[in-house]
Amino acid sequence: MKRAIVAMGGGPTRVINRSLFGVVDEATKNGIDVLGARHGFAGFLKEQFLPLTPSTPPVATLQNLPGAMIGSTRMKPNAQDCVKAFDVFKKHGINYLFYIGGNDTAEATSIINREAKSAGYELRCFHVPKTIDNDLVENDHCPGYGSAARYVAQAVLGDDMDVRSLPGIKIDIIMGRHAGWLVAASALCRRADEDGPHLVYFPERAKSLADLLGDILKVYDKYGRCQVAISEGLLGPDSVDFISSPFVRGELQKAPFTPLIGMIETLGKVEEASGGAKKDTFGHIQLSGTGTLADLLAAAVKIATFKSLGKAARCRADTFGYLQRCYAGDASPVDVKEAEMVGRKAVQFAVKKDTDGSVALKAERSGGKYRARAELVALEAVAGKERFLPTDFINAEGNGVTEAFVEYARPLVGPLPR
Amino acid sequence: MKRAIVAMGGGPTRVINRSLFGVVDEATKNGIDVLGARHGFAGFLKEQFLPLTPSTPPVATLQNLPGAMIGSTRMKPNAQDCVKAFDVFKKHGINYLFYIGGNDTAEATSIINREAKSAGYELRCFHVPKTIDNDLVENDHCPGYGSAARYVAQAVLGDDMDVRSLPGIKIDIIMGRHAGWLVAASALCRRADEDGPHLVYFPERAKSLADLLGDILKVYDKYGRCQVAISEGLLGPDSVDFISSPFVRGELQKAPFTPLIGMIETLGKVEEASGGAKKDTFGHIQLSGTGTLADLLAAAVKIATFKSLGKAARCRADTFGYLQRCYAGDASPVDVKEAEMVGRKAVQFAVKKDTDGSVALKAERSGGKYRARAELVALEAVAGKERFLPTDFINAEGNGVTEAFVEYARPLVGPLPR
Repeated sequence: MKRAIVAMGGGPTRVINRSLFGVVDEATKNGIDVLGARHGFAGFLKEQFLPLTPSTPPVATLQNLPGAMIGSTRMKPNAQDCVKAFDVFKKHGINYLFYIGGNDTAEATSIINREAKSAGYELRCFHVPKTIDNDLVENDHCPGYGSAARYVAQAVLGDDMDVRSLPGIKIDIIMGRHAGWLVAASALCRRADEDGPHLVYFPERAKSLADLLGDILKVYDKYGRCQVAISEGLLGPDSVDFISSPFVRGELQKAPFTPLIGMIETLGKVEEASGGAKKDTFGHIQLSGTGTLADLLAAAVKIATFKSLGKAARCRADTFGYLQRCYAGDASPVDVKEAEMVGRKAVQFAVKKDTDGSVALKAERSGGKYRARAELVALEAVAGKERFLPTDFINAEGNGVTEAFVEYARPLVGPLPR
Repeated sequence: MKRAIVAMGGGPTRVINRSLFGVVDEATKNGIDVLGARHGFAGFLKEQFLPLTPSTPPVATLQNLPGAMIGSTRMKPNAQDCVKAFDVFKKHGINYLFYIGGNDTAEATSIINREAKSAGYELRCFHVPKTIDNDLVENDHCPGYGSAARYVAQAVLGDDMDVRSLPGIKIDIIMGRHAGWLVAASALCRRADEDGPHLVYFPERAKSLADLLGDILKVYDKYGRCQVAISEGLLGPDSVDFISSPFVRGELQKAPFTPLIGMIETLGKVEEASGGAKKDTFGHIQLSGTGTLADLLAAAVKIATFKSLGKAARCRADTFGYLQRCYAGDASPVDVKEAEMVGRKAVQFAVKKDTDGSVALKAERSGGKYRARAELVALEAVAGKERFLPTDFINAEGNGVTEAFVEYARPLVGPLPR
């Protein structure tokens, strides 16, 4: 009897467990025994495996819930780690590895594959795509993105209705460290100019603080309210992370924004006190992954409106945080189906073809119809690479999406209100 | 033909528009003409009304979306405001007022009612209940709470799955400035001790920083992870808002937490620079409504784990923010039904009884069955009062809910995953 290990890497998603279910169910149908590794590669080394079948816990009980049911990891293995893992794999008689994750996981799978070949260990390695960031190359889109995009679209729609109820300026910080796929989804329920989000900012389009405040005040002047969606990965004009950007820091050092420089420095000191602080290339303490960008921009808006209008605008900034990837409410039905499909396809490729690779999700859109299918591509083609928003998905001003993006994304998220 | 004004007050909810629909549809059926006031009392004074019917926009198009479709207000009217409003009402021949909102809106309705009587103006005033805070007295629960509680329960469930995937300490800050109803709902998907949220903190149970950190480190030691739900209205041991609490500030002034005092002071300076800062009774700048509590607690946890374990725990804090009240995804079906029902009932009371009052939602729970009904109570009985979590809904340690709370809340939120 053949034996497979299935593992999960990177941040969890709403539907990653459906991919795991797809792998386990298809493997079982094909007479392959499946072990799940606890916390990915870390579980290989610690020999932490649990037998998985489609009809027993955790697969039977958790397949429709978000999160990585057997645990995930961010570990990047080296050659030595692989040698150790292969000893464990041999002991358990492992023939296949199915590693569900994003581009880092594709890279880990590629490393394992290369090292297995060089060690002469017969192991078929497959990467199964997953990421809310939607940034895997070779893919039309990635399982996990549709549900995260659905959450963001419904959250921003509700938030727009909220801002209309009690008008002010509202900023929503949305995930996506390098690519703007998720922040772009904030516009999916938009119908008219007066609908939020009035402004959308992407990692792909660098902006100064003056750019942002200029845009926001213009919308606020026109509608008496303004809703803004900003990617956590926004860069300053020098293409450096917005908070770290020397250009932006220069803007903050001038009146009336000087208190904000103090704010950033103090928050850096707090990070330092925890012993976990990392520094960027400019020697600043990194503040990503905190609520700092939200707090900074809300304060800048209040200061700017106080200065220009004599009264600070009602302004609040929310960082959407982990809920984008794990909210347990309704997933995108298309996403659920496709997440399961890529898991099944990986097993089918493994059984039918004597090869390794990454499952890639391709799609056809023509005449309002949408159809997805899975192909096998080389691990190296996907590993460690990132896919950014194409130019024709971002408007000329770099502060909104185009109709082309909406047409691309709408089939992926399921039916939306409004 | 009789004529009614309908208005909305306070923060919006997922289902407040269903109450508006209920009022408009029932009034129309009873031959009453309805005008909607833009932004509540502010619309009375500015004479901003729009005719509403169940089959035309905005009622026809927005009744299933969150937010106050005709705008809301936080204005508290005085006697003079009422006199001005009555001039406008008379001009439009208004016989009834239906004001949808929380306890502040009940108070506004009560003031309007009193002033109408004293001015000899024949106006029937009705308060229609709405609040995610669930803190109206005389009510078993309030329309809007069920959907907000559903959001919080599904968000915390997903977040628990996320924390299991990549273990660490996760803090979620949940709305409810004075009452812990919403933060309590974080526990509605919990089944076993190892399930998150492992700790829940309420405005009704004061805690020191040492209390929180002690609890968190104990859970972290046991499970290698810890998920914590904290009300934004948490108080320090001196019963002062946690961030303002002199007791808590005393804890922060000691090593290793001293950088956190600097953080709070700097954030206060930033608020001051915007000209909109308010001071509490201790002369501190108020920081509620920002991400400060989340940032403060995440930093304190990292510092405490760095000190006691030699390595800062992976810790992140999310402030759930406005999405709790306005997320446009699935509402609680029970909540939708009841929100519409209280709107209809207000009109029925108005038509059948020559009286004023507040519609109160009562419920019977027996033998696993749940049934709600609406009663009319005196405006003064509800106006400006708050209802807190009863003692038997909070555990003895003051850091979790009891089974009695779960039994109370489960019928209100609709079917939940797990």
